[in-house]
Amino acid sequence: MLSVVILGTGNLAKHLFTAITETDGAQVVQVVGRNRDRLKWFSEKTAISNDFSSVVEADVYLIAVKDDAITEVSQALSHKEGVVAHTSGAVSLTAIAAERKGVFYPLQTFTEGKKLDFKSIPLCIEGSSPEDTLVLQKLANGLSDNVQQIDSDQRKKLHLAAVFVNNFTNHLFGVGEEICLENQLSFDLLKPLIKETAEKVQSMSPKMAQTGPARRGDQKSMQEHLKLLKNKNQIALYTLCSEAIENAYEKEL
Amino acid sequence: MLSVVILGTGNLAKHLFTAITETDGAQVVQVVGRNRDRLKWFSEKTAISNDFSSVVEADVYLIAVKDDAITEVSQALSHKEGVVAHTSGAVSLTAIAAERKGVFYPLQTFTEGKKLDFKSIPLCIEGSSPEDTLVLQKLANGLSDNVQQIDSDQRKKLHLAAVFVNNFTNHLFGVGEEICLENQLSFDLLKPLIKETAEKVQSMSPKMAQTGPARRGDQKSMQEHLKLLKNKNQIALYTLCSEAIENAYEKEL
Repeated sequence: MLSVVILGTGNLAKHLFTAITETDGAQVVQVVGRNRDRLKWFSEKTAISNDFSSVVEADVYLIAVKDDAITEVSQALSHKEGVVAHTSGAVSLTAIAAERKGVFYPLQTFTEGKKLDFKSIPLCIEGSSPEDTLVLQKLANGLSDNVQQIDSDQRKKLHLAAVFVNNFTNHLFGVGEEICLENQLSFDLLKPLIKETAEKVQSMSPKMAQTGPARRGDQKSMQEHLKLLKNKNQIALYTLCSEAIENAYEKEL
Repeated sequence: MLSVVILGTGNLAKHLFTAITETDGAQVVQVVGRNRDRLKWFSEKTAISNDFSSVVEADVYLIAVKDDAITEVSQALSHKEGVVAHTSGAVSLTAIAAERKGVFYPLQTFTEGKKLDFKSIPLCIEGSSPEDTLVLQKLANGLSDNVQQIDSDQRKKLHLAAVFVNNFTNHLFGVGEEICLENQLSFDLLKPLIKETAEKVQSMSPKMAQTGPARRGDQKSMQEHLKLLKNKNQIALYTLCSEAIENAYEKEL
């Protein structure tokens, strides 16, 4: 049985806590964080502390705090014998100030209070030695059916790709909502389309799935769309996305 | 029982054919199209013709052809007594050269060979008279649980919103795939994230769901991401999407 300490009390900390609690091979022995209010959520289920100098011994320390705070939190664990791993997509392994270190990055967007099937989430792990990797692998295998060893450089690229498919995509959903609300239309009308757009690329390359005026090089439709838009941000996005699609397919047109 | 003629043999024509065939209240009595190869698919299930001057009588004519060809196809139906409706999001009702006319627009992305639950697809209908609207409504109610009366102006806006949440979003998925492939990473890693990003906005406004460096105004992370990008289109998209997100939330930062 692997013992785990979680450092941090945010959204990801909660999701990791729940997932680990539900596995057989690991156990959260302590949650440590500054925010007393948020610690309460964990207090009925495990030991808690808001003192980073009183962290107990464990096999793995999972740091689930803001990127900027990872190094500082890891310093409080520098004398520990367990593997100290952060959970960020964008931060190098070397940001951790401990001898045995690693990364334990779940590639998913977590929403407070919304349960996810952790088994399907890609868990990207990296260890500073084969032994450290093995410990993280063991923990990860208990949580997910999709564990990948990915080094810091690749993980940064992956995180960047995630910004495109998650953060930017969500912004486009927001623009869709904006256009609906400006025209007394319910955003609900777009929801099945949004779902199917994401569903489609589960089994088909986005390159193959691309449709729309820009894909067809249909200048007339694009001009008509631009005439309907008044918001500057929306016009700039429409223009750039259309150009990018046209560029991507221009050889084929 | 409503009788329906489908004009067109493409992807949407096939999906409409299948959905109507599966309902009790309507029946496809003929499919008419120029492409003999594509007509074959329908030939075992209903009457077919590749001659637009031999269209049979029906209650509803559904034109499922390219936007540019709608008016021309409708001219062949100008003497018919049934309601002639096109299926496009971007074209006005008035593009139809027939007395009884309408629009029958399913707001969804259709993939050849991929079956969809038609019941959940928003069907946006419009008729040139209350009687015509009623006929389309009757047909639509048999196919979908989500039938909406939406006029041509609103439908154009809705179609524009759909371009953002479907076409542009899919392009961002493609950029994610590109970044993965450039770095020897499997696009599969991003698929659960893509699915959850779309899932999230089914029950939460995209404005509330927005996360990421631009949302936080985290200039350092954005600069680091830009350093990782080499492709000009990717850089332009990253910059513009980040700016758009920052602008949208600037008052809150």
